[in-house]
Amino acid sequence: MWRSRSLRPRRRRSSRPPYWEKAEFPFHAIPNLATLGLAGGTIKGYGCPGLSLTASAICIAEVARVDASCSTFILVHSSLAMSTIALCGSEAQKHKYLPSLAQFKTVGCWALTEPDYGSDASSLRTAATKVPGGWHLDGQKRWIGNSTFADVLIILARNADTNQLNGFIVKKGAPGLKATKIENKIGLRMVQNGDIILNKVFVPEEDRLTGINSFQDINKVLAMSRIMVAWQPIGISMGVFDMCHRYLKERKQFGAPLAAFQLNQEKLVRMLGNIQAMLLIGWRLCKLYESGKMTPGHASLGKAWTSRKAREVVSLGRELLGGNGILADFLVAKAFCDLEPIFSYEGTYDINSLVTGREITGIASFKPAVLTKSRL
Amino acid sequence: MWRSRSLRPRRRRSSRPPYWEKAEFPFHAIPNLATLGLAGGTIKGYGCPGLSLTASAICIAEVARVDASCSTFILVHSSLAMSTIALCGSEAQKHKYLPSLAQFKTVGCWALTEPDYGSDASSLRTAATKVPGGWHLDGQKRWIGNSTFADVLIILARNADTNQLNGFIVKKGAPGLKATKIENKIGLRMVQNGDIILNKVFVPEEDRLTGINSFQDINKVLAMSRIMVAWQPIGISMGVFDMCHRYLKERKQFGAPLAAFQLNQEKLVRMLGNIQAMLLIGWRLCKLYESGKMTPGHASLGKAWTSRKAREVVSLGRELLGGNGILADFLVAKAFCDLEPIFSYEGTYDINSLVTGREITGIASFKPAVLTKSRL
Amino acid sequence: MWRSRSLRPRRRRSSRPPYWEKAEFPFHAIPNLATLGLAGGTIKGYGCPGLSLTASAICIAEVARVDASCSTFILVHSSLAMSTIALCGSEAQKHKYLPSLAQFKTVGCWALTEPDYGSDASSLRTAATKVPGGWHLDGQKRWIGNSTFADVLIILARNADTNQLNGFIVKKGAPGLKATKIENKIGLRMVQNGDIILNKVFVPEEDRLTGINSFQDINKVLAMSRIMVAWQPIGISMGVFDMCHRYLKERKQFGAPLAAFQLNQEKLVRMLGNIQAMLLIGWRLCKLYESGKMTPGHASLGKAWTSRKAREVVSLGRELLGGNGILADFLVAKAFCDLEPIFSYEGTYDINSLVTGREITGIASFKPAVLTKSRL
Amino acid sequence: MWRSRSLRPRRRRSSRPPYWEKAEFPFHAIPNLATLGLAGGTIKGYGCPGLSLTASAICIAEVARVDASCSTFILVHSSLAMSTIALCGSEAQKHKYLPSLAQFKTVGCWALTEPDYGSDASSLRTAATKVPGGWHLDGQKRWIGNSTFADVLIILARNADTNQLNGFIVKKGAPGLKATKIENKIGLRMVQNGDIILNKVFVPEEDRLTGINSFQDINKVLAMSRIMVAWQPIGISMGVFDMCHRYLKERKQFGAPLAAFQLNQEKLVRMLGNIQAMLLIGWRLCKLYESGKMTPGHASLGKAWTSRKAREVVSLGRELLGGNGILADFLVAKAFCDLEPIFSYEGTYDINSLVTGREITGIASFKPAVLTKSRL
Repeated sequence: MWRSRSLRPRRRRSSRPPYWEKAEFPFHAIPNLATLGLAGGTIKGYGCPGLSLTASAICIAEVARVDASCSTFILVHSSLAMSTIALCGSEAQKHKYLPSLAQFKTVGCWALTEPDYGSDASSLRTAATKVPGGWHLDGQKRWIGNSTFADVLIILARNADTNQLNGFIVKKGAPGLKATKIENKIGLRMVQNGDIILNKVFVPEEDRLTGINSFQDINKVLAMSRIMVAWQPIGISMGVFDMCHRYLKERKQFGAPLAAFQLNQEKLVRMLGNIQAMLLIGWRLCKLYESGKMTPGHASLGKAWTSRKAREVVSLGRELLGGNGILADFLVAKAFCDLEPIFSYEGTYDINSLVTGREITGIASFKPAVLTKSRL
Repeated sequence: MWRSRSLRPRRRRSSRPPYWEKAEFPFHAIPNLATLGLAGGTIKGYGCPGLSLTASAICIAEVARVDASCSTFILVHSSLAMSTIALCGSEAQKHKYLPSLAQFKTVGCWALTEPDYGSDASSLRTAATKVPGGWHLDGQKRWIGNSTFADVLIILARNADTNQLNGFIVKKGAPGLKATKIENKIGLRMVQNGDIILNKVFVPEEDRLTGINSFQDINKVLAMSRIMVAWQPIGISMGVFDMCHRYLKERKQFGAPLAAFQLNQEKLVRMLGNIQAMLLIGWRLCKLYESGKMTPGHASLGKAWTSRKAREVVSLGRELLGGNGILADFLVAKAFCDLEPIFSYEGTYDINSLVTGREITGIASFKPAVLTKSRL
Repeated sequence: MWRSRSLRPRRRRSSRPPYWEKAEFPFHAIPNLATLGLAGGTIKGYGCPGLSLTASAICIAEVARVDASCSTFILVHSSLAMSTIALCGSEAQKHKYLPSLAQFKTVGCWALTEPDYGSDASSLRTAATKVPGGWHLDGQKRWIGNSTFADVLIILARNADTNQLNGFIVKKGAPGLKATKIENKIGLRMVQNGDIILNKVFVPEEDRLTGINSFQDINKVLAMSRIMVAWQPIGISMGVFDMCHRYLKERKQFGAPLAAFQLNQEKLVRMLGNIQAMLLIGWRLCKLYESGKMTPGHASLGKAWTSRKAREVVSLGRELLGGNGILADFLVAKAFCDLEPIFSYEGTYDINSLVTGREITGIASFKPAVLTKSRL
Repeated sequence: MWRSRSLRPRRRRSSRPPYWEKAEFPFHAIPNLATLGLAGGTIKGYGCPGLSLTASAICIAEVARVDASCSTFILVHSSLAMSTIALCGSEAQKHKYLPSLAQFKTVGCWALTEPDYGSDASSLRTAATKVPGGWHLDGQKRWIGNSTFADVLIILARNADTNQLNGFIVKKGAPGLKATKIENKIGLRMVQNGDIILNKVFVPEEDRLTGINSFQDINKVLAMSRIMVAWQPIGISMGVFDMCHRYLKERKQFGAPLAAFQLNQEKLVRMLGNIQAMLLIGWRLCKLYESGKMTPGHASLGKAWTSRKAREVVSLGRELLGGNGILADFLVAKAFCDLEPIFSYEGTYDINSLVTGREITGIASFKPAVLTKSRL
């Protein structure tokens, strides 16, 4: 079930914590991340690696195993920004943008969420108004990863004429575009999330993504990215297990290694059981997708379930490390915090549960009843 | 991930509850169970079906999905009694016993646990003493399923000379053998567990299982049966999901089907996520076994993990059915109770966790320290 | 916090399990229960004990500590039937019915729930139609405890003229009244719950409870009975702790008492922590009630919270007793089952949570939205 | 049960997050904290407030409700450093140190834990060697809160002659004393924990705490401080509830306040139930202490139980705030992180459980058995 190889504890990397601690992005690491050849994932051609979805997912997990911020950075860039261009862009757009993004010469981001539309993202209000030669974008976006420095911003907006969703490629420094870093995050601290303001940002016609004409059109992007997100908790949990497994054998109290205590062994084993199950759920999700059978409910259940189990895993891991479990440089504390944004992004646990619930019952229960104060 | 076919709710079988309610075994059902062709499972020849382990496991789960007592009845008969003869018996013993057992013309049971040796079964004290022409068995056994009516009883005892474990085939009605039904069980009520007393029970030399010369020799039986036991919670959980899924769509309160309430949907989805994961864990366990890679820790983790998750599933199911969730004839209440003995037999959750813990840490932590009352 | 006295393990009473096992009511025990002097609880006069609410609640818990079926029998009789007469009956009705009920010379029951109206009880449809000299009751009731043998049945019905709730005292054997025992319960098996059919049951005017003119009027009964119900999980949990505490010290495995194992100690301590908290919540609820400050949300939260924590306690206890934890005669298994109906009656966990939720947010969320199949 | 007053949401204080975010101590806040008059707590005389223990505990909780780092700062200073002087110091020492500490003119810290002795603190190895006119202290301490800037350091060390525990007052800047800030904490980030090195630090005879002659002597300090620590999770949880309660009513999605969704209401109510129970457990602990009946097991259970329930509360709160739940400036995220060190300090959850377990079973189970690799 588990493989001894994959349980190999990793060295603590002394160079990493300062960036996480200071909530700064490690720009110097981009060339190294580029050499991994992950950007573009399953996209074929245009300088992209053309991996299988399963391979791509495992790669994301292995990055998350060491650092979840890095995996989110790649995921936003590759599974959201690049995938949208690949799935909804014209041939010319693919040729123009993908090769550079695949090599991380340029960095992408992807903007759906707005300050007032998080779980209810499809109600977004950023407006795209037709003007001569292109479009004007007006509105606000929130939580947009990589947006403070991205070269290529995919902006989703509502067409003022059709009232349907459209997509646009906006470039860094476009007049009227402003992205402000969101401060004081407790997790994924190296990821730079931004509040974006769009004030009559002009987008030339050639930078409209012609494949996006309704919310349904980005669901195919979200379906795949949700699988990738489901693998982040898997990677995080494996990294936490690695460290705990090593720590329990090395650290002694009361004259014995911590691994000799019943209470600690049961926790470690519970972590392992969850991880095995998460891996299998993630793998099954990939296989369903690759065979064309994956439904939205499958992806939502996979993301909700793995992130929920990972919460248990990192909480146990945090506890197993005692005092050292609150120090980011022992990895477990960092992972404990990094999981929280993942638990809530790309559909919170509750929203994903209700997406699956709708699929298996045929009844949507997202909205509450008309409000009444009647007594029971 | 899930298949709509497998979610098909089952009819409530009006004939079943009385047996469970009255804690009686449905002897009339044996011929029908025999037609399923499951007894003997993976054993090849001797009238046995020679199924793959995976097929055998899925069959046990499908029986448990409808009724867990029946699946335990089969499991004791097939995966414990018959497997022991197949793995540790002589060619003559196999020819003599297996064909009849495979057709349920005779019923088997398997006796390891003793009143004072449950989790610590390997310390058992039932004695086998050499006498002319055979052996005398003396001691007590407890919790032995099917033992009140079994035709063939596999008795594990300590050889008074070698102090090692030996195994014996004892026949119903042997002088000195007495099995008394254990009353007042809350779960698996149709399974007849017995307290056995062995008082100078004579076993002819030809009925000693020559392949059992130490506790290690029955570990190969336990390894496989533990996989089967791991699939019982899977089957039980699927049955509970089936019923809840149907019930939530049919039952209305406040003018809407119960399936329309957020709190109910989240529970149903949580159940489904656990079930998908349990199925995959069970499947992976079979594949590891079939490829010769399964370790004791794998089997223990699989059994511990699936039974723990099933506890959550049946508890949620019980709650979802409200008042009807306490009636055995709605199946969920019965399943809720039936899971409890499974959670504890073939290694309690804790013991199985520590077996896995020993394997991944190299440290056994079953026994507590020498007792001291020293202050911390 | 805890008192050693109250942790005293109790003897296993060999006479009890058969009734629970056979789902029969121990009629012979009624005279003994009568000598406890609990019936009537806080009612002053009419032969009732006039206890403080706190004293009355502790008594219910102490009965539940030994047997939850008996505590439910008393609760239905006293906190529902007798309280309704005391709070909503005329002086004549109190004089006529209470003294006999207080001595258990007659037994009472109380019928609100209907087959289609459980959580949504206030929508009940049993009809009360004015006829010369009295009323005709027509409809069905379900789950009514004690109803198969009760002498005095309080029936709640909808006045066909006013469409408001009214209450009636019906006597055993009234023409048109039929109560059938609900079979196959997994918990509180000695309590006789009945399905009641009312077919033109005539009630003379003098047996209408004139104090009940709307659902609000029985809320004062429910408020107090919900406190009593909140104390049942407390009593059950104490009984389970008592047994586990003794069992862990007496039972040995691997050469040591079970109490010496870390995994067992942590479970026992977790049980104890929950029990202390439950006791304090129950006590606080009584004090709020006695000082006139208790709101419906308080009572609902108290019932929901104690029954939820008790579920954890009995589940841990069941596990601690291993195989013996599935035998009703070791008490823990019985308690494990008995808690389930309590978790769901007098407001399920979810309904009570939403009652409290409405109180603290000002928003009722019982009903789902108008059903739509729109996509998210 | 709850009081509307205490549920009043608090304003977000824009000035606070930078200190937490930057892991810096807000020295400018000390004069304000001093005006609260909490330092010294229950100590009578010497300029101390002489509060009841209950009052003192509630104050700590109210500080923690707003910021847990501040409450830990006060707790280390008052309940550990000042209490040790008050309970184990000479009259002269009390007069010399307490008045200044009571006004926060000087700040105290307290050093027990060592790098290799955390849970097993009583085995500490820092040595106190008698030299003319006083003592030499040699060794290391770890995790010591306030130690990087404290004026008065209480150092616990092992008397090289008696092998028993002794206590010493060391002053800031003493030759041979070095305290280095522990970086990269995920919680209580404003608290400055230090790694201390003691290299022949001379302590004059007059600064030895003559009341500390064995580990038992500091147990009376720990008993009281553990109560205070038990109230920190209570305060933190109240603060999280305050914020969530307000947030759910203000934030809308799908056209309705978040408070209107069943899944959110249930979470909020579960938080409230836990908080009520925690408050009562904390209050009961104080009353037991004040009446001289509190045992070590009581204090350990109280600390373990409240911190465990608080973990559930802050986790629910984090989830309820969605994306904003990962921002420290919404308080909930900060509280989520701050709870973790509290869960582990002053006895981890497991250690405190085993302390209680020893008390109720009479069996100590802290240490694992002599290690063997024998097979089960």
